[in-house]
Amino acid sequence: MDELIVGFHAIEESLKDSNVQGTLYICRNMEKRNERLISMAKMNKQVAVRKIAKVEMDRLAKTDNHRGALLITKISKESSFTAEISVKNFLLTLKEDSKALVLVLDGITDVHNLGAILRSANQFSVDLVVIPQRRSAQTNETVARISSGASRYVKIATVTNIVREIETLQKEGFWVYGADMGGSSLFTTKFPARTVLVVGSEGSGLSQLVTKRCDHIVAIPTTGNIDSLNVSVATGILLYEVRRQNS
Amino acid sequence: MDELIVGFHAIEESLKDSNVQGTLYICRNMEKRNERLISMAKMNKQVAVRKIAKVEMDRLAKTDNHRGALLITKISKESSFTAEISVKNFLLTLKEDSKALVLVLDGITDVHNLGAILRSANQFSVDLVVIPQRRSAQTNETVARISSGASRYVKIATVTNIVREIETLQKEGFWVYGADMGGSSLFTTKFPARTVLVVGSEGSGLSQLVTKRCDHIVAIPTTGNIDSLNVSVATGILLYEVRRQNS
Repeated sequence: MDELIVGFHAIEESLKDSNVQGTLYICRNMEKRNERLISMAKMNKQVAVRKIAKVEMDRLAKTDNHRGALLITKISKESSFTAEISVKNFLLTLKEDSKALVLVLDGITDVHNLGAILRSANQFSVDLVVIPQRRSAQTNETVARISSGASRYVKIATVTNIVREIETLQKEGFWVYGADMGGSSLFTTKFPARTVLVVGSEGSGLSQLVTKRCDHIVAIPTTGNIDSLNVSVATGILLYEVRRQNS
Repeated sequence: MDELIVGFHAIEESLKDSNVQGTLYICRNMEKRNERLISMAKMNKQVAVRKIAKVEMDRLAKTDNHRGALLITKISKESSFTAEISVKNFLLTLKEDSKALVLVLDGITDVHNLGAILRSANQFSVDLVVIPQRRSAQTNETVARISSGASRYVKIATVTNIVREIETLQKEGFWVYGADMGGSSLFTTKFPARTVLVVGSEGSGLSQLVTKRCDHIVAIPTTGNIDSLNVSVATGILLYEVRRQNS
């Protein structure tokens, strides 16, 4: 099967992977920055370069929002959208006393938000992201593009039962912090060495069952007229705060 | 002229405005939460309620992504998308020693990012947002919806020359912090009482002329494989950090 990658940053990241095989398509009337992609492809002996007309690219990319560059690669294990792992196997990779940060997404359905969250997860070196199999956006091509290719580097566990996985993490010394308005202030929260952050869906926040399992509920102090922050912004702030405390 | 508003939160915020006049359309086969919009509209004597079929709403809303609710209002000054003000008039409203936080957007072109940023600006009580007239997304219906209606509450100055406005702010005691990767760590930056934050465009960051005018360049410390955070996430983190220091 082939994988279509659009978006300058996502293509750039893919070309850094020496295992990638495929063809880089560039529009004849190209933007200056795409020259960089061409030279990266030329260094990688397994990627061919073809210049084509815009109409042809519109057809190949299945969108006209490609900014003149498209990478089509053979899907292999090394170039899948994400690094999948089970929570159990993740725990086996942890040394007994090592710190870890796990992010649980309780029903993020919007691909823009999921992409931005995975990008932040990569930037703040989250050790594992847990996503439910149902009622959640799944990592796909669009999410990979929105994440600027970061989704490739994030360890993700797709699970059938979030609550059960949270309990498993708790048994291994993790403390679980759910993000919800009404919680204690993030300004005064001190995160432990093994932290699980749980963020809820765009519309309705954390589910009741998940809220019950959390050890603490934490809120970002805000003062606006509208109810809340965008969920990907809120998640970025929570991850930033954990890392700031560790710095 | 009429204004079309879709999105539960954006409609809810509009209905809180007692000046709003128009019609609330609800799909016959409605989601439970839309009942709340109907009761809000009924309390506001100037908003009529009509139940219609989904096909009719698709046509009226010009999208099928309306989740069964649409508000059409008469545009008046009181219900415009944003509160426009000039930088000069904004400065006149400041008392001599009062603190203030100004956010300058140097070329944010993506409406999703602009919407999320205005939502954060409202949540963290930013006193003024400065947007250039050219090479920038402008506040419109889509941005208002993505901001969950928050754009209505944010003071915005749309300006022809960002550098000139930054200089004007500096003369009034503001210190200007540009966000860019090679800057000093946000973990160790202490923001003054009058702070201007400048964030750059999604693709290319701060423009050179703007960078030159900044008093400091500040970076969010990250460690990922990809170059940077999403710009709306990064802006949220910067605003959070300023507010955390004031708490």
